Amino acid sequence: MQTFQYPVPAEWPALQQRAAAAEAAEVEARVAQIFVDVRQRGDEALRHYAATFDGVQLTDLRVSGAELEAAAAQVPAELQQAIRQARANVEKFHATQFYTEEPVETMSGVTCWRKSVPVQRVGLYIPGGTAPLFSTLLMLGVPARLAGCPEVVLCTPPQKDGSVNPVILFTAQLLGITTIIKAGGAQAVAALTGGTESVPAVDKIFGPGNRYVTAAKQLATRYGVAIDMPAGPSEVLVIADSTANPAFVAADLLSQAEHGPDSQVLLLTDSVELLPRVTAEVTRQLAELPRREVAAQALQESRAILLRTPEEMLFFSNQYAPEHLILSVENAEQLAEGVTSAGSVFLGHLTPEAAGDYASGTNHTLPTNGYARNYSGVSLDSFLKKITFQRITAQGLQQVGPVVETMAEAEGLRAHARAVTLRLESLAKK
Amino acid sequence: MQTFQYPVPAEWPALQQRAAAAEAAEVEARVAQIFVDVRQRGDEALRHYAATFDGVQLTDLRVSGAELEAAAAQVPAELQQAIRQARANVEKFHATQFYTEEPVETMSGVTCWRKSVPVQRVGLYIPGGTAPLFSTLLMLGVPARLAGCPEVVLCTPPQKDGSVNPVILFTAQLLGITTIIKAGGAQAVAALTGGTESVPAVDKIFGPGNRYVTAAKQLATRYGVAIDMPAGPSEVLVIADSTANPAFVAADLLSQAEHGPDSQVLLLTDSVELLPRVTAEVTRQLAELPRREVAAQALQESRAILLRTPEEMLFFSNQYAPEHLILSVENAEQLAEGVTSAGSVFLGHLTPEAAGDYASGTNHTLPTNGYARNYSGVSLDSFLKKITFQRITAQGLQQVGPVVETMAEAEGLRAHARAVTLRLESLAKK
Repeated sequence: MQTFQYPVPAEWPALQQRAAAAEAAEVEARVAQIFVDVRQRGDEALRHYAATFDGVQLTDLRVSGAELEAAAAQVPAELQQAIRQARANVEKFHATQFYTEEPVETMSGVTCWRKSVPVQRVGLYIPGGTAPLFSTLLMLGVPARLAGCPEVVLCTPPQKDGSVNPVILFTAQLLGITTIIKAGGAQAVAALTGGTESVPAVDKIFGPGNRYVTAAKQLATRYGVAIDMPAGPSEVLVIADSTANPAFVAADLLSQAEHGPDSQVLLLTDSVELLPRVTAEVTRQLAELPRREVAAQALQESRAILLRTPEEMLFFSNQYAPEHLILSVENAEQLAEGVTSAGSVFLGHLTPEAAGDYASGTNHTLPTNGYARNYSGVSLDSFLKKITFQRITAQGLQQVGPVVETMAEAEGLRAHARAVTLRLESLAKK
Repeated sequence: MQTFQYPVPAEWPALQQRAAAAEAAEVEARVAQIFVDVRQRGDEALRHYAATFDGVQLTDLRVSGAELEAAAAQVPAELQQAIRQARANVEKFHATQFYTEEPVETMSGVTCWRKSVPVQRVGLYIPGGTAPLFSTLLMLGVPARLAGCPEVVLCTPPQKDGSVNPVILFTAQLLGITTIIKAGGAQAVAALTGGTESVPAVDKIFGPGNRYVTAAKQLATRYGVAIDMPAGPSEVLVIADSTANPAFVAADLLSQAEHGPDSQVLLLTDSVELLPRVTAEVTRQLAELPRREVAAQALQESRAILLRTPEEMLFFSNQYAPEHLILSVENAEQLAEGVTSAGSVFLGHLTPEAAGDYASGTNHTLPTNGYARNYSGVSLDSFLKKITFQRITAQGLQQVGPVVETMAEAEGLRAHARAVTLRLESLAKK
């Protein structure tokens, strides 16, 4: 980790810099080709890409009922139990996010209300590779189910033998998701966007992925499909004071660093003593990690910064707008009050980010890359639309009508005014 | 209006078609140039575009306190009163959208909660031109204020004499918005995106505009700025049965058609008698409108469709996903239950869309172009982020910790597991 002692605010922007995304033009061009191909050839294109990228010849793109049934037997009981518990916690937290709003009478006889209606068709993308992200399936599938989305389509790349990782299937089964497509990468997103013989088109696409998947989701928005949020490398910012445990802080930093070589890790502390202890612990713990090469690469671009006060640290953090913010300080609740931009916040010494990544109940699909300034993480809301309704009575129209007429005329929109006037005249005749 | 009698479902997609957007490449290229120019030359570029597009030489880009003070005197008392009443109604409805969520204990000692935090810096764009859209300023400014956004920047193009329309200024003053920039078009959006000497950069940009503004908002998202929603021409779908008043229905259709030549207007009815009466009324009322040429153009692409049942009409409407949906039917409440995709819904014969456009309390910034399938209209939520928080106690970590360890190991993320294990070991030693 690079260390910085008491940088002046003018130096902060450089320290808050994220790695610029690599030149995207080539990726975008490739993804655009894949979209055209999937639109033209449908399932045939998906089979072609499975052969090319996943090294497998697929006949059936859909996971069969038999495959789904067989999955649980391949998942250790302890892991099954852990997934069930995590699911229960995520469900419990997200269930509280459902409100029924009461109608409001803004004027006598003018009644307005909102109703939450599920997005009808959602697509969940779960990457494959060495680590099957079944936790992400929980984080997307639980709120999709709670919201009541009638159609949930899961796309995930096949393994070399043509199967889907059994933990993914077990989790899907637990959530009652049965439309599971063996397709990964940009081609999966293209299929969810336009539909193919095997893949239903959807209204909104969720889920993480590499830069091809990210570019594909961006492109999908050009075809009227919504996405969960713009994506970027994962990141954590830890604010630690002298009461923090250096080993815990180091472990939290490393659990972010192991995600990928482009993960970003920042430590802010106002304790001169803590800083070297944390960096020493990082070095020590790093050596024991299976993914130490990945983590070491991420740490090269990571920073440990000594600042003067909690207020300075908070100000720095709000400017940076971290995806994950850990408050390893004595008065975490107090500091948390001042957080204006962060995806998810972890309070105190016994609250590791890993808890929220898996099982505490909060969602781990969060805004990265500074988007915590203007986006929320995934929640039940992400799977709902709020539709407004209104009903006006004769009395209500007599009250609100003249207001509408006056404003419409002032905006030069006579027909708007007429829609009210005609009704008011008709009421007057009665 | 084109009329269609009992089209079979296979013909529906063609009837649900919206006009394709004109070739956008040229617009996008022009907007990209403007972004570069505004980034390089700042205020100087804004002055240049004001001279070119608005025909005015500006010295000061900011509306002065004196200009703001002088505005009210130029607004008729009746209009002032109407705006105040509309503001009160919009505020009353949007104020009910603020929730405080209680913390949830997902397991004993694992406490999670969400907090709504305002987007810190928001930009509102209000178009100028013949009709000053002060109603849109209400629709964006009221929830921005309710949400508590600390910085609200308003951009609106100057008139030929260098002033801003007094009704816009009066409304801004009513809302306590004092940072008002005389800039319009793509250059205003570019300024809000990157900031200039006079224009603060913002986190999220709201508001309607022509295709240059729309393209500029899309481009802004590439620079990390969020936008309210993708934009398209305004539209209404009316479902009317035999109880509907043809004159009212025609007035509602025309109030949409007068918005612009690209507005889309659809009428669905199951009454053979009603259809010709409505089209006759449309022709009659059209002749009386000041904006009849605009409306007539919109009507050329508009459709009146005879279907067999309320269920068919509802199904058609949900597929189309209209921005505005008027239910001019006897049992509007019952039909409204089945609405899955619409921006805002108007129930019954006395509830014109115009009421929601101006003063009933609901927001008029709504998803067009089929985006009601996957987006909500602007609401208080649009100005808030929901940040999740969590606090875990020693007891809580003992409960949730093993779940996290098991799942992290199964995903191959050892450092995640270690962040828990180290803490559990430390607790065991105590």
